[in-house]
This record gives sequence, structure tokens and C-alpha cells, in this order.
Amino acid sequence: MSVTPLPLEKLFASRAHHYEPSPIRAIFDLEIGDDCISLAGGNPDLSLLPWEEITKSVSTIIEEDGQLALQYGATTGRAELTQAIVDLMAIEGIEAEPNEIIVTCGSQMSLELISKLFINPADVVFAAAPTYSGAINAFQSMEANVVQLEQDEEGITPDALLNGIAEAKESGATPKLLYVIPNFANPSGIMMSEARRHAIATVCRENNIVIVEDNPYGLINFTGERPTPLRMIDPANVIYLGSMSKIFSPGIRIGWADAPTKVHASLVPAAESTAICPSLLSQFITESYLRDHDWKSIQADSVEMYRRRMESLLRGLEEFMPEGVTWTRPTGGFFIWLTLPEHIDTQALLPAAIDAGLIYIPGPAFYAEEGRGRNELRLSFSQESEEKLYEAARRLGRLLEEKAL
Amino acid sequence: MSVTPLPLEKLFASRAHHYEPSPIRAIFDLEIGDDCISLAGGNPDLSLLPWEEITKSVSTIIEEDGQLALQYGATTGRAELTQAIVDLMAIEGIEAEPNEIIVTCGSQMSLELISKLFINPADVVFAAAPTYSGAINAFQSMEANVVQLEQDEEGITPDALLNGIAEAKESGATPKLLYVIPNFANPSGIMMSEARRHAIATVCRENNIVIVEDNPYGLINFTGERPTPLRMIDPANVIYLGSMSKIFSPGIRIGWADAPTKVHASLVPAAESTAICPSLLSQFITESYLRDHDWKSIQADSVEMYRRRMESLLRGLEEFMPEGVTWTRPTGGFFIWLTLPEHIDTQALLPAAIDAGLIYIPGPAFYAEEGRGRNELRLSFSQESEEKLYEAARRLGRLLEEKAL
Repeated sequence: MSVTPLPLEKLFASRAHHYEPSPIRAIFDLEIGDDCISLAGGNPDLSLLPWEEITKSVSTIIEEDGQLALQYGATTGRAELTQAIVDLMAIEGIEAEPNEIIVTCGSQMSLELISKLFINPADVVFAAAPTYSGAINAFQSMEANVVQLEQDEEGITPDALLNGIAEAKESGATPKLLYVIPNFANPSGIMMSEARRHAIATVCRENNIVIVEDNPYGLINFTGERPTPLRMIDPANVIYLGSMSKIFSPGIRIGWADAPTKVHASLVPAAESTAICPSLLSQFITESYLRDHDWKSIQADSVEMYRRRMESLLRGLEEFMPEGVTWTRPTGGFFIWLTLPEHIDTQALLPAAIDAGLIYIPGPAFYAEEGRGRNELRLSFSQESEEKLYEAARRLGRLLEEKAL
Repeated sequence: MSVTPLPLEKLFASRAHHYEPSPIRAIFDLEIGDDCISLAGGNPDLSLLPWEEITKSVSTIIEEDGQLALQYGATTGRAELTQAIVDLMAIEGIEAEPNEIIVTCGSQMSLELISKLFINPADVVFAAAPTYSGAINAFQSMEANVVQLEQDEEGITPDALLNGIAEAKESGATPKLLYVIPNFANPSGIMMSEARRHAIATVCRENNIVIVEDNPYGLINFTGERPTPLRMIDPANVIYLGSMSKIFSPGIRIGWADAPTKVHASLVPAAESTAICPSLLSQFITESYLRDHDWKSIQADSVEMYRRRMESLLRGLEEFMPEGVTWTRPTGGFFIWLTLPEHIDTQALLPAAIDAGLIYIPGPAFYAEEGRGRNELRLSFSQESEEKLYEAARRLGRLLEEKAL
């Protein structure tokens, strides 16, 4: 072979310059001591699951239905599971139909499918500032311009959205989607208010912007307050995403989209070319968990556990944060969002934090735009005990006083 | 809300016109009687799996490692599994490194990731005529122009490839990838010869065309003949795809890509934004299957079962096919490819075939270009007994004589 070939990366598509390692994932590759308290990942605590019963159920699935559960299945998911999902969504006040549901390998894959289905290069996707990094990645992977809008304690403001729309149109771009986590958002913990939901839905409808309502944390609800889901405010213009990851297991990779008929019809072939079908075994296990176990009482206990953890972390923050640090006080979910004085760089501070025995996610991970969120960080309270979370706040306070403030 | 909104499908991206239901999937939705013999799907026969032992293994996984197996995991897959995959690939003569492997939700997702990583709209992807419909879909989902090349009994010819390259360049398009299933191809059953592999690899290398070597059927080998994998002929220019779907279980959704370092480095973030990580539970189950069971002897028995089924189907075809019908005689895999006289439309014939008690996949499913493959069809011998396969050939012969020839 006499020709010197091009390096393979020269052959990459233009969209591929967005395929960079996630800063969050990079944190999980760091060397971290046993004594380090992790406030980094959004991992659910699985310790309260009924392990003996789950073991029995899974055995029964393999014994009785193994040849079915280990075979190919329908791209949309099993009818038994889509019905169970409809019943689950009803708890949060959503009236769904099984034939509007598509089960995917986690709701991340639903985000990916929506991105493929809607995004032309340079189309604008609106999201909160800050927002879930996996959503930013999915939209950017199709070359969306992710525009993040300021929010107040009720969520994104209609004014910020209207301004964003005007700016996008002025620059010749098409505003296409609004991505929102209305309940206990990742990473801010903010719950969008009832009035705000209606106002935002109206702006989106009037401007032909499709809403992607991502709701992994809706059932991690500490107060029982439950504003109307966007999917119920404007069913024809909202694609809803749900997940088993925070209320049962992320390791089985079961999420779903509940979408208007015409969108559903195109999500199905997109999903088929992405993964053929979701794992049938995972579907059987999910069905069994929702059908055979007292999952609602386990869920209630988990929510109470998360609430106490958050309270403990908040107590620690009250006690140990220096002047000039502010944070959110969520009513559900897994996360608290901290804003530090402007001169502090949370990414640069991370190695010292790990040395001091705690780990968090620096703010820039939650922004598409370079340079935003430098003095912000996310604390997750889902994984560690109350004592450790309180101790982590103490360590963070000491660190900020020593190193930075 | 006073403005009449656009229908959502008006907001779809330009690539989305490819997101149409698969003709193969549509066939599985047809009403089919119990007596109907299915030569349609590429489903493995799971009856020989050691079900009692698998049940025990899965119980042990949940009992002992449940909190790990049901949690989030690394995007690339577990180190234990990537090592097991390296060992598995060694059986087919491939020297791989664990850090070149990325585990995906079936190898379909690897195809999707490669498509995202390499394909700009109108880039040319070469493939055999006919080829796997799921690959066509994955490449078309990123707006590739899939150009299918004539093959002889040794596979795609270098001349056809060179002509294709010249035509693409003449039209201003960039030839980007060659997709090939060198072992017992879906749907033709053709095994690419040793000489042909070297010739094709040389043409690709000299023209900066990356080879995607898809090998789900390599271990379903009836003769033991094993030409050199393309990945070993030109490691720097070949991305290799493997799968557990045909040798263990499609329902757990475990496949992988083995890629040159720079490609691997970009596949990982692409995978993260597509699905975060493959199912950890599925990974544990796969590791256990490859480690704790005598899977090689089960595999040998399965291969012998498939071989006998193919022989039976071939005997039926010899006996019952009318003049003017030709077919391939594979030495492995799941499929035989039939070519009927030109005036027969296999899609139009399908309802009558189902009435006659057999089901196949019409040829057009395996072509990107409208109108190709009309007088061709695929028969799968993986699912039905020898007797039924022979009977299916009899039914097809009678049908062709009655209806069409």
C-alpha cells in the first residue's frame, strides 16, 4: 500500500467535534480515597430495594420466561410494560395511552432520538441555565445551538424565553425545542411553579417550539405539592420523558418517551436504527417490580431517606458556608446548587476538595457555553449518609475559608 | 392561545424523512396463524442454553452484586467484560486490547455511533447488494447515500468498489465507509474469501475509506474455515463489531465495537450521549455466561443444530423449487438468499405465502434503493425444526407453481 492514508479522525463528520469526553465522567475516573465523601453522581441509593424478593422474581422470570426474555422484542417495548408505565404516570397526574409510549435504553436514549428527529444544524434548543449535561450533549450531538435561559425560583421566566426567541429569529436561526426538567431540576433543584408552566407552555405553543418535559425526579417529592405536568397543559405540543433510573434501577436502562402520535410514529423507526429494541429482560424485571412488590412503600421510605439527607446537608451548609455563598433549597430530587463568590473557580478548586475529602461537580458541566458556571457547583445528596453529608459541608466550608475566600 | 400552531412533523429535521417503519418489523405485526412456518426473523434458537444454570447465576448476581449490577456503570463497559470480549474475539483470530473495546446496547448501537461519528449528509457508504437492513437504516439516519455493490460468491468485487468510488467522486460526494459482513452475511450467507479481503482492504486504504466489519455470525461456522478478519488485515483502518445476540441472547442487548484508538476516543462520548452506559445487569450476566458455563460446547451443539436445519432447507429447495429459482449455499450463519424469475414480486407474493403457511422477508428490505430486490427473498433457518424447514420449502414450491411461475 503505497499511499499514506489520512488519519481516521480527518474523516469524522462535522457534528463530531462535539463528541468530547464529559467532564462529569472524567471526575469519576479520578483517584479518590476511601474517606472521600461523594456529592458528585446522581446515583440513586439502592439499599432499600427488596433484594430477596427481587432475586426470587428474576429467578422466576428466567425459569418461566427465559426463552422469551432473552430474545428480541418489539421496538416500542412490551405491551405489559407500556401499560405499567401508563399506570405509573397516572400517579403524577398524567393521562397517557400505551400506544403513545416508547420504551428506550434509559430516557437518555429518548433525548437522543428527539435530537435526531428535530434538530438541523444551528437549530436553537432552549434550556434552563444551568441544565442537565446529558441533555446538552444529546442536543449538541446533532449540532443544536443550546441556549440557556436565566431562571428565578419558579423556573425559566417567560421574558427570558421571549428574548431568546427574538434573538434566535434575529440571527436567522430556528428555535425548535425547549428542554425542561420541571420537577426538582438537575442540577438546580428548582420546581417550576404552576403559573410558570402555563405561561411557558403558551409562549412555546405560540412560537412553534416543542417542549421536551424530562421528569426523572418527579416521584422524589418531599412535600407532596404537585403542579400540573406540561404534558397535561398542552398534550399536542409536549414530549414527556420518564425513567426507572431514580425510583428503581439505572443499571437496567429503562426509560421512556410519551409523545404525540405523529412524533411517536417517527421515534419508533429512529429507535429501531439506534438499538433495535430495549432489553426484554430489563422490561420483564421492571414489570415484575411494579406488579409484584410493594414498591410504593419502598419508594416512600426512599423519599424520606433522601429528604433527611438533604436536610442534613442544608444544616451543614447553613452552619459552615462562609459569607457570600448561596444555595437552592429544593423540595425534592437529588441536588442542591451552590453559587460562590465570582472569583472562585470550582473546576480549579476540585483537586483541593478531593484532598480535603469531598467531591462535587463543578458548574461548567451544566452549561453549553464556555466560561459559564465557573463559580457554581452541584452537590448531590442521594448517595451518602446524613452524617457524611453534614461532614462534607464542614469540609467544604473549611476549604473555602482556607483556599479561596 | 390564538395562533394556530404548525403540526409537529413540520418541525422535523431534514434527516427525519428516513425515519420510516422498517418493512421487516411490519411483517412481524401481521396476523399469522399457528401453523405458519417462520423463515423471517434472524432470531437465535435459545432452547439449548443451560437454563437451570443461568437461573442460578443470575440469582447469585442479584444476591451478591445487586447494588452494583442495578446501578450506573462506565460508558465503555466493565473491565471484566471487555477482557472477556477480547478472549472471545481471540477465538476468531483477532488480537484486541480491552481499552479499544466499547460495549453498546447491541452492535446496532455501534452502527449508529459510527454513523453519527463519520457521516455528513450525502457521504457515500458502500455495502454489499443486498445487505443488512439495520445497517442501511443506521447510515441513512445520518443522511448517508448507501451505495450497494454487486458481489460474486467471494463477496464484493474490487472492481465494483473501484467503480463505486469513481462514480461517487465524479458526483462530488465523499466515499466514507465500507460496511461489510464478511462471515455468512445477512442476508446472502456469503463468506468473503481470503484473497478478496486483502484486495478490498487495499482499495479502502488507498482511498481513505474506513471499513466497518460487522461479525455477528462468525461463530456460526459450519466448516471451520476461517479467513483472516479484516481487523487483522488493516487494524488502523477497520472498526470491528461483535455481538452476543446470535451466540447467547439478543434480549440482553450486548454488542461491542473494537476500534482504532482515535475512533474509540470519540465513540465513547457519542455513546454517553446516546445511552449513558450499557445495562450493567446485562454485562454481569454476559460475563457469567462466558466464565461460569461450558458455553463452547453449547455453542458447538447450536452450530450443529443450525447446520442440520440449513441442510434440511437446502434439501427442500432442491426438491421443490421450480425451474428458474436460484439460491445461495452458505457455510454458516442463519440465512439463504433466493433469486426468483424477474417477473415475480416477493413483496406482493407475501400475503399468499402466509396463507400457504410460510413467512419470509421480501428482498427490497435489504436494499437502500427503491425497486431493487423485488424478485429476491431471504429465508432464515435459525428458528424452525428441520422438518418444518423442509415443509416450508415444499409450501413455497407449491405456491410458486400455483401463483407465479
